[in-house]
Amino acid sequence: MTAPPPPPSSALLTDLYQLTMLQTYVERGMEEPAVFEFFVRKLPAHRGFLLAAGLEQALEYLETLRFSDRELEWLAAHGKMPASFVEYLARLRFGGDVQAMPEGTLFFPNEPVLRLIAPLPQAQLVETRLINLLHFQTMVASKAARLVLLAKGAPLIDFGLRRAHGAEAGLLAARASYLAGFAGTATVVAGVQFGIPLYGTMAHSFVQAHTDEADAFERFARSHPDNVVLLLDTYDTEAAAAKVVALASRLKGRGIAIGGVRLDSGDLAAHARQVRRILDDGGLSQVKIIASGNIDEAALRRLVEAEAPIDTFAVGTHVTTSSDAPYMDCAYKLQEYAGRPCRKRSEGKATWPGRKQVYRTHGPDGRMAGDVITLESDRQEGAALLQPVMQAGKRLAAPRPLADVRAAIAGELSRLPEPLRTLQDGAPYPVRISQALLDLAGSVDRSR
Amino acid sequence: MTAPPPPPSSALLTDLYQLTMLQTYVERGMEEPAVFEFFVRKLPAHRGFLLAAGLEQALEYLETLRFSDRELEWLAAHGKMPASFVEYLARLRFGGDVQAMPEGTLFFPNEPVLRLIAPLPQAQLVETRLINLLHFQTMVASKAARLVLLAKGAPLIDFGLRRAHGAEAGLLAARASYLAGFAGTATVVAGVQFGIPLYGTMAHSFVQAHTDEADAFERFARSHPDNVVLLLDTYDTEAAAAKVVALASRLKGRGIAIGGVRLDSGDLAAHARQVRRILDDGGLSQVKIIASGNIDEAALRRLVEAEAPIDTFAVGTHVTTSSDAPYMDCAYKLQEYAGRPCRKRSEGKATWPGRKQVYRTHGPDGRMAGDVITLESDRQEGAALLQPVMQAGKRLAAPRPLADVRAAIAGELSRLPEPLRTLQDGAPYPVRISQALLDLAGSVDRSR
Repeated sequence: MTAPPPPPSSALLTDLYQLTMLQTYVERGMEEPAVFEFFVRKLPAHRGFLLAAGLEQALEYLETLRFSDRELEWLAAHGKMPASFVEYLARLRFGGDVQAMPEGTLFFPNEPVLRLIAPLPQAQLVETRLINLLHFQTMVASKAARLVLLAKGAPLIDFGLRRAHGAEAGLLAARASYLAGFAGTATVVAGVQFGIPLYGTMAHSFVQAHTDEADAFERFARSHPDNVVLLLDTYDTEAAAAKVVALASRLKGRGIAIGGVRLDSGDLAAHARQVRRILDDGGLSQVKIIASGNIDEAALRRLVEAEAPIDTFAVGTHVTTSSDAPYMDCAYKLQEYAGRPCRKRSEGKATWPGRKQVYRTHGPDGRMAGDVITLESDRQEGAALLQPVMQAGKRLAAPRPLADVRAAIAGELSRLPEPLRTLQDGAPYPVRISQALLDLAGSVDRSR
Repeated sequence: MTAPPPPPSSALLTDLYQLTMLQTYVERGMEEPAVFEFFVRKLPAHRGFLLAAGLEQALEYLETLRFSDRELEWLAAHGKMPASFVEYLARLRFGGDVQAMPEGTLFFPNEPVLRLIAPLPQAQLVETRLINLLHFQTMVASKAARLVLLAKGAPLIDFGLRRAHGAEAGLLAARASYLAGFAGTATVVAGVQFGIPLYGTMAHSFVQAHTDEADAFERFARSHPDNVVLLLDTYDTEAAAAKVVALASRLKGRGIAIGGVRLDSGDLAAHARQVRRILDDGGLSQVKIIASGNIDEAALRRLVEAEAPIDTFAVGTHVTTSSDAPYMDCAYKLQEYAGRPCRKRSEGKATWPGRKQVYRTHGPDGRMAGDVITLESDRQEGAALLQPVMQAGKRLAAPRPLADVRAAIAGELSRLPEPLRTLQDGAPYPVRISQALLDLAGSVDRSR
């Protein structure tokens, strides 16, 4: 069966000023091609790279953009807009071209991740939702990639829906973290919508609802014989582990094997060692240990470096909210209008004008060696990162299967320079501004 | 007209383990009443209070909870669940009772904000989405209230949709910040959905799309004569202010007045002073100055203390993402099942058992003096904060108008003890655990 529709991307998921500006553009016939680019101005503190994500949802938004009858009614009644402009909005569709870095491309500050060319009103209207979609998934994928690199191959699972910022954040965080290399998610809608593998264990309330912890474990095991994962820390973690050993022999006669146990509080490394020993001594060396509870990069690094016997890590809040960097300094800026390059010069927020491209070179070891940001017209050495993805409002290719994006990302991460791959603070990845772009910026400044 | 429907709250916006546990509960006939409470374990760093928000969306979710045909089909095909359980889910509705603090109530760690009593499967299933809804709006309202207190009466506007974590976060952040005292939002869907006043100015791209900044200003003014707010910092803020003065006299003949100017970069206090002087010298003392750009509590405090001549503050990312505290350590925990009080004892995460109530007393000056957390059955001095809001799955009252909640919050904030009202780090607000509750916790611990 096909999946239910995604959360609606209303055309009114925008800032009021977009509509205000559009009205003037339309009145004045300012409908020449505008070139906007989405980029991140600077990296969050202690971050070395970003991972592009969210393009798929951005293209879907562009392709389906239209004002519904109810929205048009609302604008006519409350929008203080002339009827002719509301009629214009009723006909508005996105018919522009988009070039973008494929999802999963590693990128750096000031590099355009997406370039959109469309008549000015169309290109302007979509600013808010495009940023909203690209910013969030890029942020979460970038955070998740850090955890994946630190986990050194141990599976990671997203447990973050409850503390995600609303429903869409939970759904798209599951997607972004899966792309970055997570094994799956607990969020059921993400399984439905994107086919992401679902994982789950049990809650403390399950244990508490029984008068006896061992009874709770046994009931769960008999009810879910193929997925017996028992939560140990409701009362006393090691005592619970001993109950698991006793239960295992009772279940053996029924042909049920215990798959795993979960630890969710206290010193996870210490508990994991004690529980591992109890399980191993009880002949349960095949039972996996899953750890959860406030795991971020620092906690994960400590657990991995301490060689804590943990098989799988469940990460919730920290990945879903990108807790250390819950936003990025990103922008979607006009770089050219009607063939004239534009440059914003606001203090600390100046932009590079014109239609740009990013070229990346790799060293003899296959690792990324450096990028150059230049004009589209200025061919440089290396691979061009921005590729055509939409023409005249239509996608140029079907959405890539998530498995393909995941594989591409795993490859990308393996090509990161070593200090970035090990998440050391240090010298930034080299990104150069080309002479052609410097020349254009100078000439735009002089022309004002 | 009525507003379009809110973003869907799918019954599958939940963690897989809820469905797994439900299956066992149903198989074993564990459908006795369960009492769950939602609370925050501890305050984020440097925070003194929290403001309850999101109850309205939580009740709407409970009242409309059901699995759609498509969702049931998906579960039957992919959920590895027996057909009888899928049929149970098809019939499932929420029929429980809810007590809660009204939206806008100030609260503190360990105080139950919402208590839900329902047959165990119903009470368990809703955990994930209830936390998702209550956590986010409470977090944003609490952040917004801090900014409102610091602004000392100056209007604040939410500009945060683009960096909100998805669509629902943008919509609900507009609601939560409006409840906390913001004057309005730029997010159009929030105007449509909740009737929140909408505000907007112009973007840098509007200025850049014109070859001449003064032309851009004039076109905007003639196109929007009732709402002329001009953005000054695209190239040179003070030079732009001088153009505004020149434009004002040209517009006078047409009966158009300039309403305001916006500053978005650089030293906002310094620019505001220079621009104010230019405007005043040009006879434009009635023109308001709006400031935006990376405004958080620290920046707002500096601007207000420096008496920068700024009339209105637009706050984006920092309020929408609650940037200093993008999550809270909150939980929804089983406190009683089938009449038996429950207590989780996990390290650092122990809970208080039983059905609880919070009483608040006020001093002679009307300020909040202290709270006591006790059992529902143990009447204490002061006002009871948890009130019945839903019975047998039906709301007991129509949703409160947002204006009423806003007024109630303004009153609440005025009753905060002074150190909390001025956002000083210091002694926490006094919250006491009653003897009755201590006794119950002890007896639950001994009974295991």
